[in-house]
Amino acid sequence: MALKQISSNKCFGGLQKVFEHDSVELNCKMKFAIYLPPKAETGKCPALYWLSGGCNIKGEDESWDFGTGAGFYVDATEHPWKTNYRMYSYVTEELPQLINANFPVDPQRMSIFGHSMGGHGALICALKNPGKYKSVSAFAPICNPVLCPWGKKAFSGYLGTDQSKWKAYDATHLVKSFPGSQLDILIDQGKDDQFLSDGQLLPDNFIAACAEKKTPVVFRLQEGYDHSYYFIATFITDHIRHHAKYLNA
Amino acid sequence: MALKQISSNKCFGGLQKVFEHDSVELNCKMKFAIYLPPKAETGKCPALYWLSGGCNIKGEDESWDFGTGAGFYVDATEHPWKTNYRMYSYVTEELPQLINANFPVDPQRMSIFGHSMGGHGALICALKNPGKYKSVSAFAPICNPVLCPWGKKAFSGYLGTDQSKWKAYDATHLVKSFPGSQLDILIDQGKDDQFLSDGQLLPDNFIAACAEKKTPVVFRLQEGYDHSYYFIATFITDHIRHHAKYLNA
Repeated sequence: MALKQISSNKCFGGLQKVFEHDSVELNCKMKFAIYLPPKAETGKCPALYWLSGGCNIKGEDESWDFGTGAGFYVDATEHPWKTNYRMYSYVTEELPQLINANFPVDPQRMSIFGHSMGGHGALICALKNPGKYKSVSAFAPICNPVLCPWGKKAFSGYLGTDQSKWKAYDATHLVKSFPGSQLDILIDQGKDDQFLSDGQLLPDNFIAACAEKKTPVVFRLQEGYDHSYYFIATFITDHIRHHAKYLNA
Repeated sequence: MALKQISSNKCFGGLQKVFEHDSVELNCKMKFAIYLPPKAETGKCPALYWLSGGCNIKGEDESWDFGTGAGFYVDATEHPWKTNYRMYSYVTEELPQLINANFPVDPQRMSIFGHSMGGHGALICALKNPGKYKSVSAFAPICNPVLCPWGKKAFSGYLGTDQSKWKAYDATHLVKSFPGSQLDILIDQGKDDQFLSDGQLLPDNFIAACAEKKTPVVFRLQEGYDHSYYFIATFITDHIRHHAKYLNA
């Protein structure tokens, strides 16, 4: 589990670093970025994990919603994906072990958030592991992948045609069997997001499931905002405050 | 002077837009980005111009410190550059006219700042036009291009071998003949910036010239910071506050 430092830049009094390592789960080299605040010089800090959406680089693959950068944070069971596409285990097990072993991090205090496909990833990681994450939030998450075109395509490829197996990676299904109500979920969704109107995100289904289970969720439909990083930049401070409330409790 | 909108994204309650137009000065299509805050819906706003550094994309040209993206904000006089490389006139004349004519901007309240080559650009635009800009600031600017390798190479190519003409685009020389002391200059410089130790930026020469002329300048040497966007991100709020003090006065 040797880490190779790729870059280090001072930023807001701390250090923004990028590392590369050989991933056991993914059978390939992986890179991650970590921000170490000034406090990390003298004591242990909580860890807040950020999961990106698809990289959306057309041309890198035949389609940008499947393949490189679009692993949907599942452990693939189907050939040829199952050897490398194990992002769920990577994010919930291998990466936290690596972070906890190499950085001044308190392993008891971790939270997770993400954008789009990464918002889906954050929700399923938290919902599949009660008590593991102190809090969860998402920007424009894919809330009910078993019912949307992106999810159907990805899950067919990675998990096979037996749709009963898909539910284990679907936030709307997972929240129905989530024990207790200790998870405080924050979701921001742009009202002018093209993927919302395309029926890819389906937050209403997730909210209805949360309401049925009485799981606390704050859902904010943000007038005029789209799916872009401008939307994320605008509201990310609110999300970090949401997590800090639980991570610093 | 028709503007074609390329993109528009809601951001922090306002709109981040990109436009394309046919530039008269540069004889080519140009793009610029503009952020319209919520206040722009109901009244005129001041304008703060940001000049980028070189784009540093190796491979786009033979060398990234000369050619595309590295016009050094001068009006070139030499062949083959003189037809298109007129960024000084573009930034100080054509672009402000375009902005003032098409957006809710108060033409009396403008300021300018930038990074690296763009910091040089901001300084010379302000120093060559007393009273035109309310304030100026820069991140890691090229302060004395006539004496540094980047500047010598660029000015030889764009302005010819007569070095006396170079001084008209050199902040350290310009400040010596700047009338009055009404310009409040803020400069941030990373202490671990490789281009500082390489002798490309030469801020000491500029500071000495300001001291001689009693021109107010706040120069902050920031411990541990490099030349990157992480450095800019860390201190840009201070720069915007610096400009707001004069633009909102």
